[in-house]
Amino acid sequence: MNLTTLRIDLDRLHRQLVTLGGIGALPGGGVARLALSDADRAGRDLVVDWMRKLGLQVTVDRIGNVLGLRPGESDGLPVTVGSHIDTVKAGGIYDGNLGVLAGLEVIAVLNDAGIVTKRPLAVGFFTNEEGSRFAPDMMGSAVHQGFLDLDQALAVRGIDGKSVGEELVRIGYAGEVPTGIFRAHCYFELHVEQGPVLEQEGMQIGAVEGVQGISWTEYRISGVSNHAGTTPMRMRRDAGYLAAAISVEARAIAQAMGGDQVATTGLLQFKPNLVNVIPGEAVITVDLRNTDEMLLQAAERRMHEFVARNAAAENLDVQQRVLARFEPVAFDPVMVDLVEREAHRLGYSVRRMPSGAGHDAQMFAPNCPTAMIFVPSVRGISHNPAEFTTQDQIGAGAQVLLGVVLEQAMK
Amino acid sequence: MNLTTLRIDLDRLHRQLVTLGGIGALPGGGVARLALSDADRAGRDLVVDWMRKLGLQVTVDRIGNVLGLRPGESDGLPVTVGSHIDTVKAGGIYDGNLGVLAGLEVIAVLNDAGIVTKRPLAVGFFTNEEGSRFAPDMMGSAVHQGFLDLDQALAVRGIDGKSVGEELVRIGYAGEVPTGIFRAHCYFELHVEQGPVLEQEGMQIGAVEGVQGISWTEYRISGVSNHAGTTPMRMRRDAGYLAAAISVEARAIAQAMGGDQVATTGLLQFKPNLVNVIPGEAVITVDLRNTDEMLLQAAERRMHEFVARNAAAENLDVQQRVLARFEPVAFDPVMVDLVEREAHRLGYSVRRMPSGAGHDAQMFAPNCPTAMIFVPSVRGISHNPAEFTTQDQIGAGAQVLLGVVLEQAMK
Repeated sequence: MNLTTLRIDLDRLHRQLVTLGGIGALPGGGVARLALSDADRAGRDLVVDWMRKLGLQVTVDRIGNVLGLRPGESDGLPVTVGSHIDTVKAGGIYDGNLGVLAGLEVIAVLNDAGIVTKRPLAVGFFTNEEGSRFAPDMMGSAVHQGFLDLDQALAVRGIDGKSVGEELVRIGYAGEVPTGIFRAHCYFELHVEQGPVLEQEGMQIGAVEGVQGISWTEYRISGVSNHAGTTPMRMRRDAGYLAAAISVEARAIAQAMGGDQVATTGLLQFKPNLVNVIPGEAVITVDLRNTDEMLLQAAERRMHEFVARNAAAENLDVQQRVLARFEPVAFDPVMVDLVEREAHRLGYSVRRMPSGAGHDAQMFAPNCPTAMIFVPSVRGISHNPAEFTTQDQIGAGAQVLLGVVLEQAMK
Repeated sequence: MNLTTLRIDLDRLHRQLVTLGGIGALPGGGVARLALSDADRAGRDLVVDWMRKLGLQVTVDRIGNVLGLRPGESDGLPVTVGSHIDTVKAGGIYDGNLGVLAGLEVIAVLNDAGIVTKRPLAVGFFTNEEGSRFAPDMMGSAVHQGFLDLDQALAVRGIDGKSVGEELVRIGYAGEVPTGIFRAHCYFELHVEQGPVLEQEGMQIGAVEGVQGISWTEYRISGVSNHAGTTPMRMRRDAGYLAAAISVEARAIAQAMGGDQVATTGLLQFKPNLVNVIPGEAVITVDLRNTDEMLLQAAERRMHEFVARNAAAENLDVQQRVLARFEPVAFDPVMVDLVEREAHRLGYSVRRMPSGAGHDAQMFAPNCPTAMIFVPSVRGISHNPAEFTTQDQIGAGAQVLLGVVLEQAMK
């Protein structure tokens, strides 16, 4: 048969998205299925049931990652599709869930057509991608691919004081399969963009080239709190001024560097924070991201030099602390090309782009050829009950996923 | 007798400062005598007792201002000395109190020397100068000099819900003397600088030329809260960035204008105030002060234009609100010269300077020749239990006050 005529069943996929989104549904819309909560268990049980009904052989590993396996003609490494089904405290029904359920839809299409692929297939969901209850995020995929120690992860206590290990046992997902040894032939993940780029450019598909490196630095600035009227400008040690100048410099750095560089100062606090008092203390965080490690380091260096120079000029003390630092992840160029080509072949508009957020795929990227497919997020809204992606957009993304999986699984 | 040989009794003055400072004293130092509180009543009773012991005729007006009158050879308008004895929640013993008690010391010196001045003398303290319990500040002197309606002031409710009128009755200071009609021949006020200028320049006396005009504006900025990683710079509507840029522009305005211009952004708040979220909302206040109304307006105009231009460029909505606006007050040049000359005559170092804070004197300035005498605040600390002025500095200030009072009262 001609594999290129296979089409995903958008109604079936959409029905499953809505059904899974009904578990942990919030009164005003959106969904809450924090990792390893009762709602997460109920969601897991439903997806595992769907996997079994599709004939997949379901395995659960020791960190609670679930993989559904479908044999191929040969015994090689599986072409793997995955994402997550945990959510933030008040999230939408697409983030993560789409990638898992689109993977199951690929299996359903192959089942319906009676196709056995050359290579085995695997569809999985990974524990605690969001990190909203337990830190770090992408915990399950990190343990799965050998980048985080299992015992360390099991010992992590969440915002409610309970540990990952205890909660896995409680919800019945402390599996037997060892972690850190699973090898995939390649890995694909379909995900909502969580940003505005595709929508604003009228694009249907994003061929994700990698995940931006992230650098978070906190600056705690100490000066002298004084009267706004009686203290001449030349005698001030204004902690608030330096914090504000850091924010303006962050923007200047991003503009000067261009490309994928982004810079955000999302948190800023003054003390005592009164109209007529010069701030004696200020805290500001700088979030720098770039897909290129050398450029990210250049941005960090420029900011550090700016802070040091201006702290000296203003006679301020600055304590700086790294809150997070991840190097950029580059996806496999061959896989990225494949996504782009498949989208073109299907007649979808497509652009190559970085991911500004972290994803399970980045844990696979160092170990096997990996790529991601983005579909638009309406108005760029993410981690919010108002998160939305249209049915057409979902259909396009799932169809591309089917194409790239077949391309890899049939050769 | 030679009036220029009269000397204030620094020990007596200092003893009274410490005694008055013991009423409402805080455990760790400093003092709390909020306007019209029990502690304020006790302070008032003590000062009234001292006034009576000096032979002054004590009057209380309907807003609770207290004046002690000493007849002169003629019946003309009194040479008046005043300030306040209420304090902030945790203040020092000098702010306000020094001006009142130095006025009483001038009376004591004249009594001891058996001198009757040509003109009558008056020493007073005015209700609620600090404004820490009831708004506005300088309430008593404003009503006294006809700039604030009595009934409106009496109806003001404080931070504890009680009204000025109720509290005046409760503490026994709702007097009979009408307000808004008192006329002085001239007015002098000795006060601590509340800033660092005199100390840093090694000066003993400040001849205050006027009070800076004050302009407080609040900017409430609305943009769109978004993911710091997935939102490209060009698609941001970052409320926090504009707030920070306003702070940096405030500094630039003050530096470009020079002179007495000061600019402070003491209050800044982001929402949601998270490391990795672009602030969707921000609030910032701008405090601009200048001794020249035209220059102050120029500073306001430059800031408003900056905000409008950048709000448009960043696609942000800005609500702006005037929180306070006072025109600058210029003291009488003849009186300022007199202060400067008297300080020189006594061998003290002296500089002309503006006041960055508001004072009761500014309510007298439009109605009679007025001047203020500043003495240094150690490390510029004000409105704080650590407020301090040395005995030598107090002595110099009180001696200058005696000189200028005599100069005006004897002719």
